[in-house]
Amino acid sequence: MISSPTLLLDKEKCLRNIGFMAGKAKGFGLKLRPHFKTHQSAEIGEWFRDFGISSCTVSSMKMAEYFKNHGWNDITLAFPINILEIDAINAIAAEINLNSIIVSTKTLDDLNQQLKSPLGLYIKINTGANRTGIEPENISLIDKLLEKISANDLMKFKGFLAHSGQTYAARNKEEIEKIHAQEIQIMAALKQKYINVFPEIEISVGDTPACSVSENYKGISEIRPGNFVFYDLMQVQIGSCNFDDIAIALASPVVAKHPERNEIIIHGGAVHLSKEYIFLENGEKSFGSIVILNENHTWGQPIKGAYLRSLSQDHGIIKTDSKEVFDSFTEGSLIGILPVHSCLTADMLKSFLTTDGKKMEMMKW
Amino acid sequence: MISSPTLLLDKEKCLRNIGFMAGKAKGFGLKLRPHFKTHQSAEIGEWFRDFGISSCTVSSMKMAEYFKNHGWNDITLAFPINILEIDAINAIAAEINLNSIIVSTKTLDDLNQQLKSPLGLYIKINTGANRTGIEPENISLIDKLLEKISANDLMKFKGFLAHSGQTYAARNKEEIEKIHAQEIQIMAALKQKYINVFPEIEISVGDTPACSVSENYKGISEIRPGNFVFYDLMQVQIGSCNFDDIAIALASPVVAKHPERNEIIIHGGAVHLSKEYIFLENGEKSFGSIVILNENHTWGQPIKGAYLRSLSQDHGIIKTDSKEVFDSFTEGSLIGILPVHSCLTADMLKSFLTTDGKKMEMMKW
Repeated sequence: MISSPTLLLDKEKCLRNIGFMAGKAKGFGLKLRPHFKTHQSAEIGEWFRDFGISSCTVSSMKMAEYFKNHGWNDITLAFPINILEIDAINAIAAEINLNSIIVSTKTLDDLNQQLKSPLGLYIKINTGANRTGIEPENISLIDKLLEKISANDLMKFKGFLAHSGQTYAARNKEEIEKIHAQEIQIMAALKQKYINVFPEIEISVGDTPACSVSENYKGISEIRPGNFVFYDLMQVQIGSCNFDDIAIALASPVVAKHPERNEIIIHGGAVHLSKEYIFLENGEKSFGSIVILNENHTWGQPIKGAYLRSLSQDHGIIKTDSKEVFDSFTEGSLIGILPVHSCLTADMLKSFLTTDGKKMEMMKW
Repeated sequence: MISSPTLLLDKEKCLRNIGFMAGKAKGFGLKLRPHFKTHQSAEIGEWFRDFGISSCTVSSMKMAEYFKNHGWNDITLAFPINILEIDAINAIAAEINLNSIIVSTKTLDDLNQQLKSPLGLYIKINTGANRTGIEPENISLIDKLLEKISANDLMKFKGFLAHSGQTYAARNKEEIEKIHAQEIQIMAALKQKYINVFPEIEISVGDTPACSVSENYKGISEIRPGNFVFYDLMQVQIGSCNFDDIAIALASPVVAKHPERNEIIIHGGAVHLSKEYIFLENGEKSFGSIVILNENHTWGQPIKGAYLRSLSQDHGIIKTDSKEVFDSFTEGSLIGILPVHSCLTADMLKSFLTTDGKKMEMMKW
């Protein structure tokens, strides 16, 4: 029995999300290299393997090590190489196919001195997210990086990699498609420019919004979506998925009711859901949507007229303008919260309870 | 050697913060019952014990169990009782002095049926934070709760408890003092009203801002600040402390530099620092301030003209308008980040590296 905040995982929804993306990649002739930072779970990794997926993406060396230890032998660390972690890089790259991304001549020079195992390298391109990556028109820097990579036998240039994270600001399919088309255009031009010298050149792109809605993958070798495995409220707002696709919910005990403020207090706070929020249509911030939990730990559609208005470390405050909703919950019952950002929620809970009653642990720090 | 995001703890600053609060409580004749949700560390608990502190506050039953297992035998769970956790409540209350808070007749009725061990109860009063608590003028509800508590021999009414969390919106000492004075007035009136029937009645208040700056504690029995053990940027902005008082910083590897955007990319993201932010004077959001780390893992004042402008799961983006600052950091070096909200940062890292080179683990989930 659940007595404290617990992250529920609807395995059927999760398998459906994985199945759709695996099928779509197959249909479009793309390699699916899912980003495992969202679930950080060896067991969910196995659910991908059942669809023939044998490569994955991670965002830290610790995650690379965890998945290597669980049998993954083709991993891309989609994070700029941190030369301080060279010992771990050398150790893991000696055992499996390890790829990472490069954006810095300084790091490449350091790597040239210290690399002892074969390493695949993508040049990270900024396609508008303005997080990290080289400007696509900075050909002199790209050429300089390519020259250094080619001069070291342990380094293998794999191709160009991008992440158009600005799709997270999109609010419908058209906006997503526009951003995605720009990315494809930029990457296609680079591929065209270098394919004669590097005939095996790969183009790796693919955020969850674009991979969820687009049918345009011209010139793309592989996609790396991650969030789609669970989806969340932010993805609903972007237009990537429906409420029904969200595969995780936080089960939270109701601990107090304040009729004078139309508020319900739950045990479920920033240490469970993160401080990530979306704006509702009425301009209010929402830290989560409310669902009724069924006996088998599945849940229905979000309750209308109720939302999580505020979070502190352990408290969550549900606001509702509906007396019916207010009256339907009592202290000592459980309520479900659909998360705004499932990657952060999963990272904080570090385990799942599946709808078939199984506790699944995630990678521990 | 540090190679990945690591939470540094300046033990001297931390001891200084603890020492000041312990001394201040002593001077004003207050019991200090520090909130341990900020550090969640048995070892830091011992640093409090060295000042004669023998009682603490926690925000979850798991935390109560952790500190009980580390020798704390007087614990207040400052969170509305969750009747679903009755087994843990009965088990812990059988071993130590356990107190908690009550805001609900329903929960009190459930407790009356299921409580098997002695439990201290505070009635939680809403003094303006509007999180949880009974309105102070709702005397009929307070009387109803008192009647139910008095009718059960295992329940002991301890007094009234409040948390004026609205001090977090204050921006100077005067605003903090005003909120604190209102709270004291509300609580003093309640004490006055019930002291004849309950001569041992206690008044428990005390957020970090008020306990840091105020000298007004008339009628107060105990204070429960927590954040002061580390402080953070939010507390600097509120006016509770100076930059020099902040006792933790995230050591983050620099992994990329983008001169065309005046941005530096670090490994240090939302899974380390949370998505909590403050607004800078220029209206920009900041997710952290930048400090230079010394060899012994101490740090200096925040660098002017640089701030953490954005976080994703593992990436942090430092923005700087100073070429000197930009040039002073290279890929492969470490940079320090002062957190916006130290409670959430500590909760996510789950361990500290002290300035004297010791790794200290926190409570694990």
